[in-house]
Amino acid sequence: MEAAAAAYLGMGLCAAGFFGAAIGIANIFATTIETVGRQPNAEGRVAKYCWIGFALVEAVALYALVLAFILMGKA
Amino acid sequence: MEAAAAAYLGMGLCAAGFFGAAIGIANIFATTIETVGRQPNAEGRVAKYCWIGFALVEAVALYALVLAFILMGKA
Amino acid sequence: MEAAAAAYLGMGLCAAGFFGAAIGIANIFATTIETVGRQPNAEGRVAKYCWIGFALVEAVALYALVLAFILMGKA
Repeated sequence: MEAAAAAYLGMGLCAAGFFGAAIGIANIFATTIETVGRQPNAEGRVAKYCWIGFALVEAVALYALVLAFILMGKA
Repeated sequence: MEAAAAAYLGMGLCAAGFFGAAIGIANIFATTIETVGRQPNAEGRVAKYCWIGFALVEAVALYALVLAFILMGKA
Repeated sequence: MEAAAAAYLGMGLCAAGFFGAAIGIANIFATTIETVGRQPNAEGRVAKYCWIGFALVEAVALYALVLAFILMGKA
């Protein structure tokens, strides 16, 4: 296998990180919806965890995206 | 393996990101359905988390789609 | 591996997106069934989330289908 071919394969494998990030972000928002629906006056307290949790999971997805673009530059 | 072949395989691997995004978007809407069914007056409060959560998970799916089209251009 | 062979393998990998979409759509409808069964008068309110959620998850499955047809054209 030549180097450019392996870099393209590696970019495809980076999409596996998006897989988990998508499930995780959805889980955070689903739990927020359920909690705000059950205790409406808790919205102010839980919303900050919702946004911080989203940002931290998104950061993991961006690690995979950065690696994919680094591989793109190597091909 | 030649470079074009690896790029085609990489496009297929990008579909793994769609896998997680589909489960995640469905999870958000399923929780919204359950919450709105249980507390009808909570619909206005939870709907915003439903749409924002959907958009953010869809964004992760679009990262994978962008990588797939970049690979298509390399093939 | 020659390019046509890799394109066929990539088309097969695109089915991974269908896997998640099938589970997700089923999750949305299962939750709708449970919610409507428990609160019959909530059907009008939750039905719109059911159809919108289905359409948005189906859209993710169609991304994978489009990628599969693009790969079919390359083989």
